Amino acid sequence: MALTTLSDLFYDTLRDIYWAEKHLLKALPKMAKKASHAELATALENHRAETEGQVERLERVFDIIGKTARGKTCEAMVGLSAEADHVLKEAEDEAVRDVGMIGAAQAVEHYEIARYGALAAWAKLLGHNDAARLLAETLEEEKAADEVLNRLAESINPEAEAERKAA
Amino acid sequence: MALTTLSDLFYDTLRDIYWAEKHLLKALPKMAKKASHAELATALENHRAETEGQVERLERVFDIIGKTARGKTCEAMVGLSAEADHVLKEAEDEAVRDVGMIGAAQAVEHYEIARYGALAAWAKLLGHNDAARLLAETLEEEKAADEVLNRLAESINPEAEAERKAA
Repeated sequence: MALTTLSDLFYDTLRDIYWAEKHLLKALPKMAKKASHAELATALENHRAETEGQVERLERVFDIIGKTARGKTCEAMVGLSAEADHVLKEAEDEAVRDVGMIGAAQAVEHYEIARYGALAAWAKLLGHNDAARLLAETLEEEKAADEVLNRLAESINPEAEAERKAA
Repeated sequence: MALTTLSDLFYDTLRDIYWAEKHLLKALPKMAKKASHAELATALENHRAETEGQVERLERVFDIIGKTARGKTCEAMVGLSAEADHVLKEAEDEAVRDVGMIGAAQAVEHYEIARYGALAAWAKLLGHNDAARLLAETLEEEKAADEVLNRLAESINPEAEAERKAA
């Protein structure tokens, strides 16, 4: 798709993040199932529920700009998912898997923070103020999700776990 | 590579970001060349120079943990690069290409912010305080680079450009 105008770029990026969010709806339950720390499993499940609302918001944005809600493969999310899968597959120790999973999830959150930040700014430039508001709402949710993961990361210490097991 | 301990996860992620930074050393000049806004070109060139220092810091971290500095393909960076290339290839309008490029560069910065944040925390847990300090230095540089791009994004308005051209 040629990106001739800012509207084209906005639509193209919207389709990209729409695909990414739908992909996450499937990936998050798999991660939650593999989480050992109960709070991590809950955080991932909560974020899955939140992601449903974010998908709906994106569909409202497609509606506002008069376009069909249709995703296109988000190459960044494909790569981020491959990294998360690598941790799920290779980390045998529960605490190592948990912190690796948190790291992978935070990389995803940060990708989304960058994308929603740009989309909200572009929506404003295009005069789509309602769309900008919806995108800014999701942006705040992604920032909060990253904070939750930050706090969780501080409470899991695989080194201390390993020492306890060895003692 | 099996991720049996936190040390394994740390080394694996270090190799991943090392590959990503080396990839950026080649990608940033290409982006700078395609930038139309002079300040954007300068920001991308400055960040390339900064990236050289970040690669050196990573090599010092490999040294601290007594491992060979060797990259492994960073799947997320492969995807993020594909998105940047898409904008460079498809955006014909200069201002649209500039804002699209800023968006792609910010997605890269956010990936790095997530990764260096995790790496610095893991280095601390592993008792590698010097490594943690080096990684935290780069983390601050990535956050600052994102801020520079944020300010630049506010000064480029493809909609106003298009109106000026049409007038």
